[in-house]
Amino acid sequence: VKPAEIAALLRPRTPELNAVRRRLARCHAVADLRATARQRLPRGVFDYIDGGAEDEVSLRRNQAAFAEIDLVPSYLQGVADVDLGTTILGVPSPLPLALAPTGFSRMMHPDGELAVARAAGRSGLAYAVSTMATTSIEDIAEVATGPLWFQLYVWRDRGLSKELIDRAKSAGCHALMLTVDTPVPGARERDLRNGLTIPPELTVRTLLDGARHPHWWWGLLTTESVTFANVSNRAAEPSGVMAYVARQFDPALSWDDIGWMVDAWGGPFVMKGILSIDDAERAASLGVSGIVVSNHGGRQLDHTPPPVAVLPDIVDAVGDRLEVLVDSGVRRGSDIVKALALGARAAMIGRPYLYGLGVAGEQGVAHSIDILSAELRRTMQLLGVASVDQLSRTTVQRR
Amino acid sequence: VKPAEIAALLRPRTPELNAVRRRLARCHAVADLRATARQRLPRGVFDYIDGGAEDEVSLRRNQAAFAEIDLVPSYLQGVADVDLGTTILGVPSPLPLALAPTGFSRMMHPDGELAVARAAGRSGLAYAVSTMATTSIEDIAEVATGPLWFQLYVWRDRGLSKELIDRAKSAGCHALMLTVDTPVPGARERDLRNGLTIPPELTVRTLLDGARHPHWWWGLLTTESVTFANVSNRAAEPSGVMAYVARQFDPALSWDDIGWMVDAWGGPFVMKGILSIDDAERAASLGVSGIVVSNHGGRQLDHTPPPVAVLPDIVDAVGDRLEVLVDSGVRRGSDIVKALALGARAAMIGRPYLYGLGVAGEQGVAHSIDILSAELRRTMQLLGVASVDQLSRTTVQRR
Amino acid sequence: VKPAEIAALLRPRTPELNAVRRRLARCHAVADLRATARQRLPRGVFDYIDGGAEDEVSLRRNQAAFAEIDLVPSYLQGVADVDLGTTILGVPSPLPLALAPTGFSRMMHPDGELAVARAAGRSGLAYAVSTMATTSIEDIAEVATGPLWFQLYVWRDRGLSKELIDRAKSAGCHALMLTVDTPVPGARERDLRNGLTIPPELTVRTLLDGARHPHWWWGLLTTESVTFANVSNRAAEPSGVMAYVARQFDPALSWDDIGWMVDAWGGPFVMKGILSIDDAERAASLGVSGIVVSNHGGRQLDHTPPPVAVLPDIVDAVGDRLEVLVDSGVRRGSDIVKALALGARAAMIGRPYLYGLGVAGEQGVAHSIDILSAELRRTMQLLGVASVDQLSRTTVQRR
Amino acid sequence: VKPAEIAALLRPRTPELNAVRRRLARCHAVADLRATARQRLPRGVFDYIDGGAEDEVSLRRNQAAFAEIDLVPSYLQGVADVDLGTTILGVPSPLPLALAPTGFSRMMHPDGELAVARAAGRSGLAYAVSTMATTSIEDIAEVATGPLWFQLYVWRDRGLSKELIDRAKSAGCHALMLTVDTPVPGARERDLRNGLTIPPELTVRTLLDGARHPHWWWGLLTTESVTFANVSNRAAEPSGVMAYVARQFDPALSWDDIGWMVDAWGGPFVMKGILSIDDAERAASLGVSGIVVSNHGGRQLDHTPPPVAVLPDIVDAVGDRLEVLVDSGVRRGSDIVKALALGARAAMIGRPYLYGLGVAGEQGVAHSIDILSAELRRTMQLLGVASVDQLSRTTVQRR
Repeated sequence: VKPAEIAALLRPRTPELNAVRRRLARCHAVADLRATARQRLPRGVFDYIDGGAEDEVSLRRNQAAFAEIDLVPSYLQGVADVDLGTTILGVPSPLPLALAPTGFSRMMHPDGELAVARAAGRSGLAYAVSTMATTSIEDIAEVATGPLWFQLYVWRDRGLSKELIDRAKSAGCHALMLTVDTPVPGARERDLRNGLTIPPELTVRTLLDGARHPHWWWGLLTTESVTFANVSNRAAEPSGVMAYVARQFDPALSWDDIGWMVDAWGGPFVMKGILSIDDAERAASLGVSGIVVSNHGGRQLDHTPPPVAVLPDIVDAVGDRLEVLVDSGVRRGSDIVKALALGARAAMIGRPYLYGLGVAGEQGVAHSIDILSAELRRTMQLLGVASVDQLSRTTVQRR
Repeated sequence: VKPAEIAALLRPRTPELNAVRRRLARCHAVADLRATARQRLPRGVFDYIDGGAEDEVSLRRNQAAFAEIDLVPSYLQGVADVDLGTTILGVPSPLPLALAPTGFSRMMHPDGELAVARAAGRSGLAYAVSTMATTSIEDIAEVATGPLWFQLYVWRDRGLSKELIDRAKSAGCHALMLTVDTPVPGARERDLRNGLTIPPELTVRTLLDGARHPHWWWGLLTTESVTFANVSNRAAEPSGVMAYVARQFDPALSWDDIGWMVDAWGGPFVMKGILSIDDAERAASLGVSGIVVSNHGGRQLDHTPPPVAVLPDIVDAVGDRLEVLVDSGVRRGSDIVKALALGARAAMIGRPYLYGLGVAGEQGVAHSIDILSAELRRTMQLLGVASVDQLSRTTVQRR
Repeated sequence: VKPAEIAALLRPRTPELNAVRRRLARCHAVADLRATARQRLPRGVFDYIDGGAEDEVSLRRNQAAFAEIDLVPSYLQGVADVDLGTTILGVPSPLPLALAPTGFSRMMHPDGELAVARAAGRSGLAYAVSTMATTSIEDIAEVATGPLWFQLYVWRDRGLSKELIDRAKSAGCHALMLTVDTPVPGARERDLRNGLTIPPELTVRTLLDGARHPHWWWGLLTTESVTFANVSNRAAEPSGVMAYVARQFDPALSWDDIGWMVDAWGGPFVMKGILSIDDAERAASLGVSGIVVSNHGGRQLDHTPPPVAVLPDIVDAVGDRLEVLVDSGVRRGSDIVKALALGARAAMIGRPYLYGLGVAGEQGVAHSIDILSAELRRTMQLLGVASVDQLSRTTVQRR
Repeated sequence: VKPAEIAALLRPRTPELNAVRRRLARCHAVADLRATARQRLPRGVFDYIDGGAEDEVSLRRNQAAFAEIDLVPSYLQGVADVDLGTTILGVPSPLPLALAPTGFSRMMHPDGELAVARAAGRSGLAYAVSTMATTSIEDIAEVATGPLWFQLYVWRDRGLSKELIDRAKSAGCHALMLTVDTPVPGARERDLRNGLTIPPELTVRTLLDGARHPHWWWGLLTTESVTFANVSNRAAEPSGVMAYVARQFDPALSWDDIGWMVDAWGGPFVMKGILSIDDAERAASLGVSGIVVSNHGGRQLDHTPPPVAVLPDIVDAVGDRLEVLVDSGVRRGSDIVKALALGARAAMIGRPYLYGLGVAGEQGVAHSIDILSAELRRTMQLLGVASVDQLSRTTVQRR
């Protein structure tokens, strides 16, 4: 070893990074964000993000279905510049990616939906705000710099639904996304076993947990509120998530209800939770702008087929009439590549950014987007494909 | 956080639930009842319920076969009201579900078959009383409010069989269910390894176990008897389950014997344990009312195909001539949905209610039924199917 | 509980069984014999029995291939009497089973091949004595009451082969079984890692082991010899098994050599180790009496297909010209049923009886046979098949 | 036991073997070398050798794909003499095997590429020196006695590429091997998690590690240099492997660049990293001498198909126009046999010899070659195939 090298070996590492940066710097993949979130969040909160319905068969298969798709590279294609940009619902997007609606975000971090909206905006991505948000759509719209979509659960009280649509329009949301796979709530047994309530209750178990996750409890106690911000007056007291939600959703909702919602909204209208060709055809015949092929991340009906497995047939059936998005199981840039190669316009993510939110608020959400963006770019380069619109079924191969 | 929320956080939980209710309240799925039964019962008793023949290949595959079937939902179907009712063997049933015959129930709980019959009656479900019951059919009939069926093992002593048929008739049983898959007993090696005897013997091992499960031993010692109630005078002394049973069953039983039994009974006659199209055809040609496609929960011949896998072909062959029921591996409401979509009239459960019986007697059995009923309803709603007779093969999809 | 029952509960178990009987009484399946052998034998000896070549892929797949075959029962067939008898190589056998040749049996138990021969004789089964036996064929013939076969490895020294054939004939062996899958020895890496030598050497490691398995070492030191009894003068000093054997086998052996052996023998001639249709055809064209479809229990070439998987095609090709036996992976009576249903005349076992030999000498071997015999009978009864010649491909079904 | 045998049992083993020989003597398979390397090397170094890209799906599947191929033996073929020789790129080779290019070899052992070259030469095998070697091609050429190939990464600075080609030619390299699957570096997350830098930095973690692996650190500190020897002046300071490499590789490289390289080289030209028929056809149409079907050992694009799975189609397409080599997942002699049976001219290994290098320098590399050579010979004999050119697709069978 030469003297210069010995000196190099002994050079101390600069302590410039602060704690959050250090924490994120150790997260090289979404799986790392997940592992860190598992350490930092109370178990009930982590499991609320991470879990699925009943035996979690669909949850596991969603990811496995991506792993069953091979990527076939072509080399020497000159991929110094890769164009990841596309257009989603008529709006240019720097990535074929959008942030799916997720409820109760203040439970993961006091900044909740504001952190998510800021991070999405920083990357120019669309963010679908949930009906179950813990920040009002108006407050979110104030900080958002990227496109906002509003996700709608239709309530037994149709007046409330109409009111929500009007508020979303006033707040400047670009698209309305109706979730159709929730006639009743799925059985998330981790939540039942953890006794999760919204907002969290102080019990012996949660007090003990508080001692182990003081930063989280401090954030919770100093935040404004973790009740529903859009529908807060109707959620008077803490209760089990499922019990509360079960009382509000309307299982009587039918295809006949879609017309007035499309009309009332008057802009891009997306139906989220489609898994069958029949439902996709029906949506297309009603003139909706897009559908999200999704099984709600395995959180609603267990034993549904993985969205990425039914995607190609649905694209073949309706892909020329509306935009097909897909979510459920996206954890890698390569998953996004596979979804696009099979005909999706874009992928949506939920858990990946929530893990990030739980780990480090806005910076954590941004980090999750950065990871997927870098993976997407690298995967495209290693595949020899220079722009997302060149991805086609020849790129992928079912095992 | 607002003052009202802090107050809410500190509100103590009311201690109204008694121990049994608390125990059951923690059981959200049949898997939880099983886990609790494993803790509360002596190992030999739990294993008697839980185990299967030889290498338990069929036992495991029974459940796996359900998991290999996907459910394909249709949304926006207006499923506020779901009709779970059907008709089984000519009698209306509020659920497409019946309780399969199981032996030695007093070993799981001192209330034994009486607890099962009461819980079945409370839900209006049929209960098939086993020849190997530890309560007499007459005593059970006294407490039963739902339909009773009598399950028959044919004994070397045909007079005993005839006598049992007559007693079942007198006791008001609606149907006779002949089990055909037991020419000899299956090799339940867990029982052999545990040294299980009926009734349980006091040995060094069981005494040690008694110290760990005092409630169970107390129940055993204070119960009337755990010997066979219908055939008790023939079981003079404790012995290995298999050895005893092996001496009683008649391996010479043949199709020629069915005629007199059908005639002697004169009511709905069901054959349980059919796995092949040939046997199903033969049963249909003899004019029996129904068959149960079953491999005895994996407790008889190991390496048999899972009943749910052979169900569709059997339904195609004989479904228009008799009712096809199915058991073996049913642990979720979604399993019942799959069975029905493949053509079964109803599903039967054994272990699920025995776990409940071991955990909390009658309340435990009722809880197991309530779990499956709620899961069944939710699965139907999430599938977009409003009544069980609308379930068809388009609802399911083999992976 | 009635007074009589309490008395029964307190009745002590009679201590009539001796240690060996107790040990065997706890072995309900071959898997139990294996587990007990693992405890009782020095690791090197157990691994020599239990292990396979290289990554043991074939070893594992041999058993898995049986598990991939389903059994389809027919009930009500009147199976009080089941006929397990058949004819193997022209000689009646009470079971469709024979004991495969295995080397170094005195290493498992001081009684070695004598124990095996006595137990085989007690059940009337054929026993194929290995060239690598540690007891001379003459001594074995003296105690054998069932048919003896002699298994031949052809040595570089052809005179030795001829001499062995003559000795086997003089000793009254009924059949000669030529093993063809050993042009060179397989790489049994467990033996290499354990440093196994024949006979065992005293090293620090084996001395330590001796303290843990005193009964085994006592047996070894008091036995006559553990060197090769048929070829002992050529094995002068302890050495690695593979190294020694490698020097003796003749990789130049070819089909041209078969003629003189068939002629020299003049009786039933069996080729063991056939896996391809071509080799089976060639054997049939030479007029041999039988073949054993076998991959040497996964001990020779790793990654070979499981014998039971290639069995049907081989039976179709040559089954009308010679008897087809099968080994490798047989651990259950149901495995024997499957082999017969696919066209085998009989199955052979190696490890199962060696586990028994290691556990309890002759009684252990007899116990392994009794287990398989009982399982075979029960499986036939549960299948509804009353004699082995009624087993056919309709009984089985590939998953 | 006879007196002579007791004496033999007590005979001490001669302590003639030195530590290195002892260590290697315990390595019977590549898996043993890997396990020993894992113990002896710092974690970061072991993981650099052992790891793959992202979720290591391709890494695992590369080996699994070999295990899914069966070998079908023919016996009695007279295989006393087996000819393992072949010709690779016009040069006779005693084995159908070559050493793949691997970077940073001095990190595994101070002798680095010199040890590899010496061991390759001792067996007469070709060794492809990497652009990322830590010894200059001139120094390596000085000690090499077997064929040297030079592996080229094309740099942003094309002048550097040209310079490397010239140096390789001057040094007497027989073939130029252009790696095409690295437009950008793969995401080796183990390296990121370990904080691996080239050369290794002294940090608290590496100091602690030093205490556990003193021999390795001693070797590192006493070696000349672990920076890149061929391109050292451009690698000024320690940095993350990926970051450094990412700055150097040229993602703009395209098929148009191949012409001048083939011309500039003027000798055998091989393209490494081909996975699609299209790319193979294109390579063939440019007149290159050979391709290596490879996914870079699962280190570049994750989720690519295993090379051995795509090999047959590629051989069918271009096998008559150029030589097809294969790497990625070769760990056994039987893997080489399978590759050849599917049409490869030879296999290449990377990790197997690097494990050996880490365990014992030149002797370790030689040992890895000896293991594979012995396994190859034995597998051929057990298959009944006397020379590598007789291997054909009838020898193998996909499960």
